[in-house]
Amino acid sequence: MKTRMIATAFALAGTAASAQDLARSLPGAVDAVAPALAAYSAEDLFASVWNDEALPMRDRALVTFAALVTRHEADALGRHAELALDAGVTPAELSETITHLAFYTGWGNATAAAEAMAPVYESRGVTAEDLPAPDPDLLPLDEEAEAAREDTVQTNFAHVSPGVVETTRELLFNDLWLRPDLAPRDRSMVTVAALIAAGQPEQMTFHLNRAMDNGLTQEEAGAMLSHLAFYAGWPRVFSAMPVARQVFESRAN
Amino acid sequence: MKTRMIATAFALAGTAASAQDLARSLPGAVDAVAPALAAYSAEDLFASVWNDEALPMRDRALVTFAALVTRHEADALGRHAELALDAGVTPAELSETITHLAFYTGWGNATAAAEAMAPVYESRGVTAEDLPAPDPDLLPLDEEAEAAREDTVQTNFAHVSPGVVETTRELLFNDLWLRPDLAPRDRSMVTVAALIAAGQPEQMTFHLNRAMDNGLTQEEAGAMLSHLAFYAGWPRVFSAMPVARQVFESRAN
Amino acid sequence: MKTRMIATAFALAGTAASAQDLARSLPGAVDAVAPALAAYSAEDLFASVWNDEALPMRDRALVTFAALVTRHEADALGRHAELALDAGVTPAELSETITHLAFYTGWGNATAAAEAMAPVYESRGVTAEDLPAPDPDLLPLDEEAEAAREDTVQTNFAHVSPGVVETTRELLFNDLWLRPDLAPRDRSMVTVAALIAAGQPEQMTFHLNRAMDNGLTQEEAGAMLSHLAFYAGWPRVFSAMPVARQVFESRAN
Repeated sequence: MKTRMIATAFALAGTAASAQDLARSLPGAVDAVAPALAAYSAEDLFASVWNDEALPMRDRALVTFAALVTRHEADALGRHAELALDAGVTPAELSETITHLAFYTGWGNATAAAEAMAPVYESRGVTAEDLPAPDPDLLPLDEEAEAAREDTVQTNFAHVSPGVVETTRELLFNDLWLRPDLAPRDRSMVTVAALIAAGQPEQMTFHLNRAMDNGLTQEEAGAMLSHLAFYAGWPRVFSAMPVARQVFESRAN
Repeated sequence: MKTRMIATAFALAGTAASAQDLARSLPGAVDAVAPALAAYSAEDLFASVWNDEALPMRDRALVTFAALVTRHEADALGRHAELALDAGVTPAELSETITHLAFYTGWGNATAAAEAMAPVYESRGVTAEDLPAPDPDLLPLDEEAEAAREDTVQTNFAHVSPGVVETTRELLFNDLWLRPDLAPRDRSMVTVAALIAAGQPEQMTFHLNRAMDNGLTQEEAGAMLSHLAFYAGWPRVFSAMPVARQVFESRAN
Repeated sequence: MKTRMIATAFALAGTAASAQDLARSLPGAVDAVAPALAAYSAEDLFASVWNDEALPMRDRALVTFAALVTRHEADALGRHAELALDAGVTPAELSETITHLAFYTGWGNATAAAEAMAPVYESRGVTAEDLPAPDPDLLPLDEEAEAAREDTVQTNFAHVSPGVVETTRELLFNDLWLRPDLAPRDRSMVTVAALIAAGQPEQMTFHLNRAMDNGLTQEEAGAMLSHLAFYAGWPRVFSAMPVARQVFESRAN
């Protein structure tokens, strides 16, 4: 609640998601139980962080949504799905994010998210035609990168769990990652957000590199960390920062 | 959704849990919000993974149940308790799993699981006589293994937290682990599943070795990893795989 | 359920939170689904651990509350907020704990906690005047310690995420930590509890040292570990113990 951190709400003019939309993402009970938290939310989170141009508001909404799915915050998902749709994420992209996160954070997180979102889609008239098909034409596979990945996994784990090796190849890298309804850069972005939110920095090197190969800039990745500090907690982000540093430095050389 | 991953639902004939039972574990909202996720569920998870004979369906249901308790997925627990009971897990075993997981994943996860399961037990007519007693005759203690465990914990932590050292000995290893209503192999299996689902591979070496001492085969452990990838997310499993590899290799020598 | 672990409920006489209050924190369904868990709760957790004088009951209630907020156990938070208030935690302290944990375990955990607590505050007639103001007079800053902290973070992460570096300084260490409505020792205690409950021992060294600088004794820290084993699970505590050991030993030299 430092004055210097406060950005004016007027900075929001012109974006689809307004300060009012952001405020609606906060339950009314916060005012009654923790007025200080309500003030931090209004001044430092909604009026400041969400409007920091280092990461577009649409990306912030998608990253927040991915973090909430990962943390099984079903109670808040409906409100944040509304926010994401208002900020320009399409119903198809949100749907595909849920399917993606089933694999990256567990089936139950994704199915609970679907339950929370069904009323939102219904009230907005979203139907099956607006959503990704189960079997679309896939994007082309980067055969060389995939061969290198498969080789590493085979060498390390073929005798540990043949099932994991097979499903990772067939379902994830030769299928899910090639689905066209979420851009590879966005797919990587929600994957990294999920890893940070789940407290799995040890799995982040591969995916942050992939995200940056797919177009996420270093500035955007740094802004994601700053944004997720609010939604996943500072300690999760501080555990992810050394990994981000290492990735940034390895790519600079 | 690769055709080669699809097993026919007829493979389920003869087991108590049918493809229809599995399908009922998925909320209807998934169809409306993420049709692709519904298709992956039907084709790759229910018709394929659940029917992979590397791990019996009864074990898969118990492992899934343990993962959901650990992840506090109370919304899904009722459905999966039904599935486990249909697949041959007894009410006493599910009850004892909850008691066990109170110690291994926190009291609140276990008490929320009890709340989710009470209506299931009531509708099936399960009563106190069907459930493990608070003070049964205990299985015999392996004095030598326990002395080694206690010695390690005393040496490392007696001055850090005498309370932890004492309750670990008295409540866990001289009591909980000796309760007869869940076979030692199953007790170990749900413990390992909980550690994978909670993202604690650093605690897995001791318990995976204990599970294999108690009769879990390497093939079954590998199949558990493959199964849990769906329910806890691929990254949790990829963080557990190096530990599993080390345990398998250390036991082979 | 060892007899030697059982303390008499009469030891509770004279504290505001009685054995009856503790028993009310357990859902009734536990009796019906897992009678053994109900017995462990009554005999080993409520009658024994909660009454161990190594940590006052008021602190145990606050630590438990922090662990439940961190674990998003919204279903149990109302009951445990009642327990904390009966044990002498003030409404202002609970409110400030929620605001603090928004930063340390994520906004959604804190806002869900506020939703769970609103009915409790309403039924007890707690109003805005009883709660911490958004902008109170702050405690004095330890300039030297803060300069050292800022220097480390700048050196390591200024180029990784300038946003994290700035908000950590402005919102956390020059603001949140100086708010007067939760004693620094208690603020540190709930932070350490949150790190243990979230499975982040890698972030604990700084905060356990700070807690002990702020007055938490080694015996109290050890008792916290023992208490949290029940609420966060034994594995979380066993992953935290080596860090606690290292901190204790480094301070003894």
